[in-house]
Amino acid sequence: MSYSTDPRATRSREAMLVAARELLVSEGPGAITHQRVAQQAGVGRATAYRHWPRAEQLLLDAMGGTDLPLFRDPEAPVRPWLRRQLRQLADELAVPAVAAVAVTLAQSAMWDPEIAHQQDESTRTIAERIHAAIELAVEGGELATTAGAADVAALLVGPIVYRTAMQRGDVSDALIDRLVDSVGTWHR
Amino acid sequence: MSYSTDPRATRSREAMLVAARELLVSEGPGAITHQRVAQQAGVGRATAYRHWPRAEQLLLDAMGGTDLPLFRDPEAPVRPWLRRQLRQLADELAVPAVAAVAVTLAQSAMWDPEIAHQQDESTRTIAERIHAAIELAVEGGELATTAGAADVAALLVGPIVYRTAMQRGDVSDALIDRLVDSVGTWHR
Repeated sequence: MSYSTDPRATRSREAMLVAARELLVSEGPGAITHQRVAQQAGVGRATAYRHWPRAEQLLLDAMGGTDLPLFRDPEAPVRPWLRRQLRQLADELAVPAVAAVAVTLAQSAMWDPEIAHQQDESTRTIAERIHAAIELAVEGGELATTAGAADVAALLVGPIVYRTAMQRGDVSDALIDRLVDSVGTWHR
Repeated sequence: MSYSTDPRATRSREAMLVAARELLVSEGPGAITHQRVAQQAGVGRATAYRHWPRAEQLLLDAMGGTDLPLFRDPEAPVRPWLRRQLRQLADELAVPAVAAVAVTLAQSAMWDPEIAHQQDESTRTIAERIHAAIELAVEGGELATTAGAADVAALLVGPIVYRTAMQRGDVSDALIDRLVDSVGTWHR
């Protein structure tokens, strides 16, 4: 779209997304209206409507705007790499904004097909990246496992999401070690 | 409250809660208004206001209305008992209404202190019940583990919540076996 090449439009779009994520965390998805977001970002309401004609589009962008570099480009030895990635995931989910995005996506996916699609893409990407790391570990003789890609992702990511978003507590390094151990037998 | 002893009031309250949970699943928390819930339940709007003067109370009851008997009263041998309980949890969360309640609670807890309290109570109860089962297994020589109560709950429940609510897929018996194995070393 033409506005994306205009630096001023790009700046106001970014300011509105920051504002929308702040409102999402402090007041929930109900606060993501054109008026509130424009006000908080210090732009006119018409600008918000120009970027997102429908409020759901704005909410979707505010919720799904974070493309995580997490679990990308695995390195051998995989075990310490995996622990670092899980530590980073836990630290990111400890930020209320990120946990809110994750949980709001899961909640909205239950009745919004567009968000459901985004949620499916997101969890599939995570599972594929983790699977590539697990394959690297198995090929290198570091790990023996029979768990499938989706199960490994659930075993590694599930407890971190549960601890941060549902138990609302911190993830210790000891818990991360347990997660890594739960996917199979590590040989080094 | 006096209305709770009136069978007719009890019936209409139950009908409204069923209606509210249906709306919660099909349209999300935004649909939980006195008018919509009363209409769907076939009662007058004034009846809804009499039971829940504020809309948040109605939403909270609709979301948190399920007291799970799950993980209560552990039995030895603990391992098969635990597998049955996790199977039941997975089957319950496979019902969209239940997954919606769990995820909506987690989401709303992020900005509503009352719901945060309810969420904390709920996850603490689950962790305490699971801990009692783990203690029984350790005392009976069935299990050796150094994991704390909250970690065990995260290891067992987290992947099931992630699979059902975020990956939006089924929990296999093989995954449940992996979860049980992840909490420590089982001796029988």
